[in-house]
Amino acid sequence: MTDAATIAQKYITLWNEADQAKRKDLIAQAWTEDATYIDPMMEGRGHDQIDALVGAVHQRFPGYVFAVSGKPEGYGDRVRFSWTLGAPDKDPIAKGTDFGIVAGDGRLKAITGFLDYVQA
Amino acid sequence: MTDAATIAQKYITLWNEADQAKRKDLIAQAWTEDATYIDPMMEGRGHDQIDALVGAVHQRFPGYVFAVSGKPEGYGDRVRFSWTLGAPDKDPIAKGTDFGIVAGDGRLKAITGFLDYVQA
Repeated sequence: MTDAATIAQKYITLWNEADQAKRKDLIAQAWTEDATYIDPMMEGRGHDQIDALVGAVHQRFPGYVFAVSGKPEGYGDRVRFSWTLGAPDKDPIAKGTDFGIVAGDGRLKAITGFLDYVQA
Repeated sequence: MTDAATIAQKYITLWNEADQAKRKDLIAQAWTEDATYIDPMMEGRGHDQIDALVGAVHQRFPGYVFAVSGKPEGYGDRVRFSWTLGAPDKDPIAKGTDFGIVAGDGRLKAITGFLDYVQA
């Protein structure tokens, strides 16, 4: 059984890491080397590209924080979890749901993201 | 741009087809030959296995109907849509969300399903 809650929390933690060196460590722990990421706005493959995507979000939304929302779910090698992005103590500016495929070693090998809400 | 609404409707229509010969035609139109399907209860690869999964649902829930719920979404080769399963004029007994990858010819090559609600 995939531990969806742990996978989701590790994933969100790396998205919140503004320090690039620390973030690269977290990415290497959470993603396989050939991992793919795609959402409606951006995509990347491998640790360096994924790090660049996360860094771009920090540049665009400094001080904003991702949080797991609801209960992550998983079965076999599949996971689904939802998240929010917002400034501390403010309503979220965005919400989304990510669908993942997990490798045999427990790291993510693919994420497809969808947006559930974007502040007007 | 993926036409997520059309893909979702074709997909739901084949799930509702009780006649196996007609259903196999619909499956061939909607899925690639090597397509994969997985949800928390079952999985299959290729037209024959997918047909067997759909047929098993008809056997278990005769007279029940799937319907698209909400607005299907897509970008690039990814789609997401939600559905309900219920007897006509009754509340749904199940709801779910499916995530798909679309081949270059517009047919589905992969679906990962999650359940959003199951009647107790």
